[in-house]
Amino acid sequence: MTRDVVRKARLSGERTEDIESLLSSMEADRNIASSDVLVDMAHLVMLTRQRIVNETHAKTLMRELLEMYESGVPIDAYDPSCEDIHAGIETVLTKKTGGDAGGRLHIGRSRNDEVATCLRIRTRDTILDQLEAVNRLRTALLEVADDHVRTVMPGFTHLQHAQPVTLAHHLLAYEQMFARDFDRLFDALRRVNYSPLGAAALASTGYPLDREYTAKLLGCNGYLENSMDAVASRDFAEEILACDTILLVNISRFCEELILWSSSFVQFVILDDRYCSTSSIMPQKKNPDVAEILRSRAGTILGTFVSAATIMKGLPMAYNRDMQDLNPHLWRGISDIRRDVDLLAGMIASARFNTSRMAEEAGKGGTTTTELADTLVREYNIPFRTAHHIVGRAVRDGSLDLVTLDKAAEEFHGKTLSSLGITEEKIESALSVTTSLSVRSLPGGPAPDAVKKSLAGRKKELEKDIEMITDKKSRINESINELLTHARRIAQL
Amino acid sequence: MTRDVVRKARLSGERTEDIESLLSSMEADRNIASSDVLVDMAHLVMLTRQRIVNETHAKTLMRELLEMYESGVPIDAYDPSCEDIHAGIETVLTKKTGGDAGGRLHIGRSRNDEVATCLRIRTRDTILDQLEAVNRLRTALLEVADDHVRTVMPGFTHLQHAQPVTLAHHLLAYEQMFARDFDRLFDALRRVNYSPLGAAALASTGYPLDREYTAKLLGCNGYLENSMDAVASRDFAEEILACDTILLVNISRFCEELILWSSSFVQFVILDDRYCSTSSIMPQKKNPDVAEILRSRAGTILGTFVSAATIMKGLPMAYNRDMQDLNPHLWRGISDIRRDVDLLAGMIASARFNTSRMAEEAGKGGTTTTELADTLVREYNIPFRTAHHIVGRAVRDGSLDLVTLDKAAEEFHGKTLSSLGITEEKIESALSVTTSLSVRSLPGGPAPDAVKKSLAGRKKELEKDIEMITDKKSRINESINELLTHARRIAQL
Amino acid sequence: MTRDVVRKARLSGERTEDIESLLSSMEADRNIASSDVLVDMAHLVMLTRQRIVNETHAKTLMRELLEMYESGVPIDAYDPSCEDIHAGIETVLTKKTGGDAGGRLHIGRSRNDEVATCLRIRTRDTILDQLEAVNRLRTALLEVADDHVRTVMPGFTHLQHAQPVTLAHHLLAYEQMFARDFDRLFDALRRVNYSPLGAAALASTGYPLDREYTAKLLGCNGYLENSMDAVASRDFAEEILACDTILLVNISRFCEELILWSSSFVQFVILDDRYCSTSSIMPQKKNPDVAEILRSRAGTILGTFVSAATIMKGLPMAYNRDMQDLNPHLWRGISDIRRDVDLLAGMIASARFNTSRMAEEAGKGGTTTTELADTLVREYNIPFRTAHHIVGRAVRDGSLDLVTLDKAAEEFHGKTLSSLGITEEKIESALSVTTSLSVRSLPGGPAPDAVKKSLAGRKKELEKDIEMITDKKSRINESINELLTHARRIAQL
Amino acid sequence: MTRDVVRKARLSGERTEDIESLLSSMEADRNIASSDVLVDMAHLVMLTRQRIVNETHAKTLMRELLEMYESGVPIDAYDPSCEDIHAGIETVLTKKTGGDAGGRLHIGRSRNDEVATCLRIRTRDTILDQLEAVNRLRTALLEVADDHVRTVMPGFTHLQHAQPVTLAHHLLAYEQMFARDFDRLFDALRRVNYSPLGAAALASTGYPLDREYTAKLLGCNGYLENSMDAVASRDFAEEILACDTILLVNISRFCEELILWSSSFVQFVILDDRYCSTSSIMPQKKNPDVAEILRSRAGTILGTFVSAATIMKGLPMAYNRDMQDLNPHLWRGISDIRRDVDLLAGMIASARFNTSRMAEEAGKGGTTTTELADTLVREYNIPFRTAHHIVGRAVRDGSLDLVTLDKAAEEFHGKTLSSLGITEEKIESALSVTTSLSVRSLPGGPAPDAVKKSLAGRKKELEKDIEMITDKKSRINESINELLTHARRIAQL
Repeated sequence: MTRDVVRKARLSGERTEDIESLLSSMEADRNIASSDVLVDMAHLVMLTRQRIVNETHAKTLMRELLEMYESGVPIDAYDPSCEDIHAGIETVLTKKTGGDAGGRLHIGRSRNDEVATCLRIRTRDTILDQLEAVNRLRTALLEVADDHVRTVMPGFTHLQHAQPVTLAHHLLAYEQMFARDFDRLFDALRRVNYSPLGAAALASTGYPLDREYTAKLLGCNGYLENSMDAVASRDFAEEILACDTILLVNISRFCEELILWSSSFVQFVILDDRYCSTSSIMPQKKNPDVAEILRSRAGTILGTFVSAATIMKGLPMAYNRDMQDLNPHLWRGISDIRRDVDLLAGMIASARFNTSRMAEEAGKGGTTTTELADTLVREYNIPFRTAHHIVGRAVRDGSLDLVTLDKAAEEFHGKTLSSLGITEEKIESALSVTTSLSVRSLPGGPAPDAVKKSLAGRKKELEKDIEMITDKKSRINESINELLTHARRIAQL
Repeated sequence: MTRDVVRKARLSGERTEDIESLLSSMEADRNIASSDVLVDMAHLVMLTRQRIVNETHAKTLMRELLEMYESGVPIDAYDPSCEDIHAGIETVLTKKTGGDAGGRLHIGRSRNDEVATCLRIRTRDTILDQLEAVNRLRTALLEVADDHVRTVMPGFTHLQHAQPVTLAHHLLAYEQMFARDFDRLFDALRRVNYSPLGAAALASTGYPLDREYTAKLLGCNGYLENSMDAVASRDFAEEILACDTILLVNISRFCEELILWSSSFVQFVILDDRYCSTSSIMPQKKNPDVAEILRSRAGTILGTFVSAATIMKGLPMAYNRDMQDLNPHLWRGISDIRRDVDLLAGMIASARFNTSRMAEEAGKGGTTTTELADTLVREYNIPFRTAHHIVGRAVRDGSLDLVTLDKAAEEFHGKTLSSLGITEEKIESALSVTTSLSVRSLPGGPAPDAVKKSLAGRKKELEKDIEMITDKKSRINESINELLTHARRIAQL
Repeated sequence: MTRDVVRKARLSGERTEDIESLLSSMEADRNIASSDVLVDMAHLVMLTRQRIVNETHAKTLMRELLEMYESGVPIDAYDPSCEDIHAGIETVLTKKTGGDAGGRLHIGRSRNDEVATCLRIRTRDTILDQLEAVNRLRTALLEVADDHVRTVMPGFTHLQHAQPVTLAHHLLAYEQMFARDFDRLFDALRRVNYSPLGAAALASTGYPLDREYTAKLLGCNGYLENSMDAVASRDFAEEILACDTILLVNISRFCEELILWSSSFVQFVILDDRYCSTSSIMPQKKNPDVAEILRSRAGTILGTFVSAATIMKGLPMAYNRDMQDLNPHLWRGISDIRRDVDLLAGMIASARFNTSRMAEEAGKGGTTTTELADTLVREYNIPFRTAHHIVGRAVRDGSLDLVTLDKAAEEFHGKTLSSLGITEEKIESALSVTTSLSVRSLPGGPAPDAVKKSLAGRKKELEKDIEMITDKKSRINESINELLTHARRIAQL
Repeated sequence: MTRDVVRKARLSGERTEDIESLLSSMEADRNIASSDVLVDMAHLVMLTRQRIVNETHAKTLMRELLEMYESGVPIDAYDPSCEDIHAGIETVLTKKTGGDAGGRLHIGRSRNDEVATCLRIRTRDTILDQLEAVNRLRTALLEVADDHVRTVMPGFTHLQHAQPVTLAHHLLAYEQMFARDFDRLFDALRRVNYSPLGAAALASTGYPLDREYTAKLLGCNGYLENSMDAVASRDFAEEILACDTILLVNISRFCEELILWSSSFVQFVILDDRYCSTSSIMPQKKNPDVAEILRSRAGTILGTFVSAATIMKGLPMAYNRDMQDLNPHLWRGISDIRRDVDLLAGMIASARFNTSRMAEEAGKGGTTTTELADTLVREYNIPFRTAHHIVGRAVRDGSLDLVTLDKAAEEFHGKTLSSLGITEEKIESALSVTTSLSVRSLPGGPAPDAVKKSLAGRKKELEKDIEMITDKKSRINESINELLTHARRIAQL
């Protein structure tokens, strides 16, 4: 550890492998190495502009930084003897440019604000990728829904057949969930995208830094004002992990259904082979492995939120080393979400839905008895609860024919249905799936016409959301391009 | 259980006490009893307007509902033989008005959309209370900060003295955290405040309900469109529990500091007796019990989020009974947050800060050595890392006098500081707390001038946030008043 | 709060309702009120025996304690102006006996060791109840298994039909899980059942207490030696919450299956009506609500563990008020487990299993193709992986007739199966459910003979476990009886 | 993915990188690669003995397995196109030995029982390492305690000075906690160390395997009987993660104290430089980073338990792919605990305790007022609560001199202390640290004599525990050696 440029003067003693393994954040820092180069460049552009670093030093340093930006952070910067990537990059720079220049990049800065900035930049970019993936998932759902506005299927509550719905209606339910996930992540993005730079260790610095300028160069909405808050807060990490947990919980629900639907009992869907595995011993097996692991992922992300919140709980101001240990949870939590969302989108887009099996089940299990009870209320003025009791008793007694219903009506209503003029034909019509579905035409209901309207509305909403992300991304790219332009200019001075 | 009006026709068998204890949500439903009356009234106003229920039935029912609204839900409605408050209220209504009227309130509705609406209404109101409390806390912080713009104290990292800051600066760090908590909760509020009514069990209903109208009467932003999503989603609950967890984690950090600061080692603060307890055995004790329990509350709220997310994970569409078991976690999670936030506000407002102890510690532990190193960089052009090494080595060697610094400078810089013209006076001046503080005048820095500007900005921000909540509340109240006007009119038909 | 006997001399100021609500543990303390009386009695018996309290005072106090033991803790002791039940009971005693006697019960004791003892006593008793319930559940499983040794059904992996098993075999899998839960809880019990009494606030006391004697009177295995550890540790609470989480996770898995099995797709089981609910709107519904809530309970208990661990994390020695806030989680976590386990036992014992549906599905979905592949290996010496490929390809090609298999064999083995002398009859026999089942007769396999042996072994194991709990309980009861005998003797002095 | 030997015949379609990344467990499987070789060897020794595989095939395969055992699993086995290490090793073996031999190793086995066995073997070995580390930590604590039996220091509750204790007493509190962690882990070890081999996919197999024999060769206590339970259960993983969470929570408490104690306010301890870091900007800093990260580790391990339990919740029988996703949490959870425990041991053993600072603080903050109150009770027969009030009021009034005490006594006791013959000398003597400490000589109390006895008892206990682990390890090693002997014999046939 003695090679570590930060440590060497102040502390004595050789560190054991155990100590280095505990303290080093190198493995997790792979996630921020490239962000760190950007942050270094932005800081240096600003230091040069503020004349805190002279042009000669700036040029020397910027050339190396641009080299890292273009060819990647060199392997030496990951040397395990450095505590973190910041020390690693500084060590490499110092070696290449000599201490006179290399030692100046850290002016007016501490690892505390540096790492906080890197975390935010990288998290912002990752959220943007997630948001795009969520929109792709929504697109897939709306496209499949488009084809299945009239595909009847049973709706379930308590995993029991409940009432007829359509596949499009079912898919739109998920699209709305994922649209809220989009909203939540977009709100989180707003809070993430601030620059802590200039906060230094905790108390800012005596150098005349331009905090607004570095924030702008990095594509941030602004800078995090209070210098202690800037280095001590990780609520952005907790928030994004919570949002991703909620998103994955929603995904787990859909996957549970895909697993059920592809079981040999249900057979509502045939998943594409690519999303399935077989068994090492049972040659007939085709298992919905992708859906299973996507289901389990909610557990993984939940764990990262728990770890992050528990680590932060009760930490006094300002920076504490515990916070370094939060980072691996952040990366584990957010890195694979884009992939997960895209996999679900792909699985749905490529699935074959067995519409005849769905139709076959749509009327089973008494899914239309509610409509029968409703008919008794609407057309024969029987109080709702009474109608519910009449039909419920007939179900328990095993049949919905007129005889059984009459007997139940006598008990709960004091007179038979026949005496009200109700016929077997009337009952049968009330019990048909088509009737049950078509009358449910309220906004947001499963009747094909209602679903079509919903679909149209959702598409418009989605388009707006897609545009919003495109805008956001292009504005950030412009900032980064401006940063690069300045950087290249300095390198060529 | 046979008295339960919902259950009696369909299912046989007497339930054991164990079963009732598991299935009953009565205890948790105390939280939504009054919301349920509002929801019933809104539904009935709409049913009447849509002529689904005639005026006679409507009048009979509305009188009872208004009675409940004004005098509270009667104790009979909580009869443990009913599964939930919805069955309880319906049972009471049916008993009072007869089945002919009572049985009609549930037309076009299921407990699934009913409970989802109640949960959202109650959660919305609770969030609004939390938001007001957070603003009171921010107010308290800004007021105390106003008095302490020049109260120097040591800033800490790793619980070690780091650099001088001021108490105002320290408090502003928390104000910014809590402002973000405000933002997050406000965003969550937007997603919560939608009405599921009209979704019925999962597939909406054949009755011509006006979903937009009931949503408006209840003060909602609109209705939750897709009927399956409306009854099956609880992401609003997960989100608010996550937001409250993050808020409480922030609170736990402040409380940790209050506990440390009131310890006999630190003595930065004397908490008001009301927020302290003594010991049953040690007569001298004055313990910071309120701060301790506020610290622990983060653990409690985190547990509610974990429970909620784990319960929802992998649940297929649409409603499952598991979701009932989420509600106690929701109430436990959100109900006491207003109190907690207000307690912290009160504790800070009533605390006496020991400014002389703070000043005494401000310069201890080498808090100004960074400024010494910075001075070497700024005024003598020594590279930052080298300056850091020189001062670091002198610290390790036990003194910051010129002799020791010279020795270190020779090792790391190749020449002594004396040779650069640096004197003992120069060093002493660089090491003074006043210097260190006043040069840190960047936006967001601890220098009194910078803090004053920050304070002014934060006050403006806070005023805006206070107004936003006032507006929001008054708009909701107007809706509820409109609902009551309609209800009273119907009752007097 | 000024009435609180503990607080009044040391601290000034009236407390607000918010403060009392935060600090009071009265609600949670209902769980330990009766344990507290036992602990008081044991402490007083010992104080008397050690002549620290004289017989007159002891008699006065003991009479009141016995009265509380026999008639219950009086309502006054729960006065919300007292911080906890310990202060409440002491206040009542003091009022009844006068300060001269009442003030002596707390000699050599603090609330810190008092509450820790109460928590452990109550937790111990609750674990014993849980252990008995787990044994009842195991009994139910073994009894149902006994009836279904030959009831074939499909075994599943990935919710896909895998290989034939029997219902008995399936149930025995759960019995083994629950047996491990028994073991875990029994191990936890051993660590819980220690008495902290004598530790006082944290540093024990100068009075010559007999710690071993009070421990014995309370039925404990001994006393917790180190006085700081005794009041500062709550790992017993974390451990039991973890054990109960694991138990409930196991239960959630069984309940998931009962929900699936009672769906109209599967129909393997008909749950007794008592364990089901209907819908408020859909009259046909019979929903497996008990199984659903039992499934969700794992989420609830997991949350309590998270809360407990997060609250304890990072607490310095010795007692901190945060620990009071752990108690509600402990009670919420452990109190209903007995009920949950008994409900599962009752649901299984009363369920009707649809053995014909099970038999119908046992051979579907290629459940016997593994046996076909195995036959190729065993009887025709084809390498296992090759045999697996041959059968797998035939499955993909849609048939397991000789023609298709021959084609696959040529591709993967270089020759047809026919050329090895394999006939259609041979294939059919290998594919029969009976064959597949009966050859799986390894210890622990599903063949009826193997299951019978397992059953016999499990019954013996269970009997031993039942006896172990009976013993444990009777030994504790003897101690409590001894305590009562001494207490009554003192009261009659 | 088509190269995967398991998959190729049954399923079509090329997999995308996203799918492979989700499904592959290769990264996590690095933890079980060497266990898998042992399991393969044990399975093959048994297959050979049972004459299920002939000697020629056995010899060919065993040579390759021994090569892997001795030189490590070759890099090819980690090819990302294989789903897991089991497929990877089988692919390598098949390539090396030809399908005729290679395809036979998987006879009577599935990846389901194979992976479950590997998980258990590796977890067992890891627990044993943890247990040894816990014993080393206990050793360190007892050794330091030995030197500090008379080192007085203040004991704290609520972070307020409470009563005098000694450093040895304080350390012994932790030793007892860690001894319980030892117990818990040892109990968990007993449940982990069973072999699932022979369970195959879920229904065992038709081959005449000897399950007991493979279990013995792998050093297991026996085999997991029921074949479905054997592949479907992961409660052993949940349990060990829970135990490690509890252990880390205990560690976090000690580390919190070390952080406090090394702060410039307290200065009770000087941590060795090796366990500290400095700042990248503040040259004076020496931060207790190792203690901080050890404190945060509890949050990390808690997260793994949450993930594991949430993933398992509600999974139906038997194996589901979700369970693969649990494994990374298991490894993350248990792998670094040995290191963490050793680091704490090293940090304590190398720390310098500032005994004069401790002594200086021991009597501050009224730590001996309890003893003063106790003296009033013991020697002057004042009821305890009254004595507590007298002293408490005097503390509030700012002094413990006779005048102030007399005034308080008059209020609460009706007469002055002077009137009872109490003198200033008496009071001073009662308030001395030495008195307070020496009278607390109950078993488990802080008086030096009591601590010495405790120390002697703990050492004996620890020796027993050390021996227990040595025994356990040597018995497992004997089994593995027997396995190797058989394996080498077969390879040389």
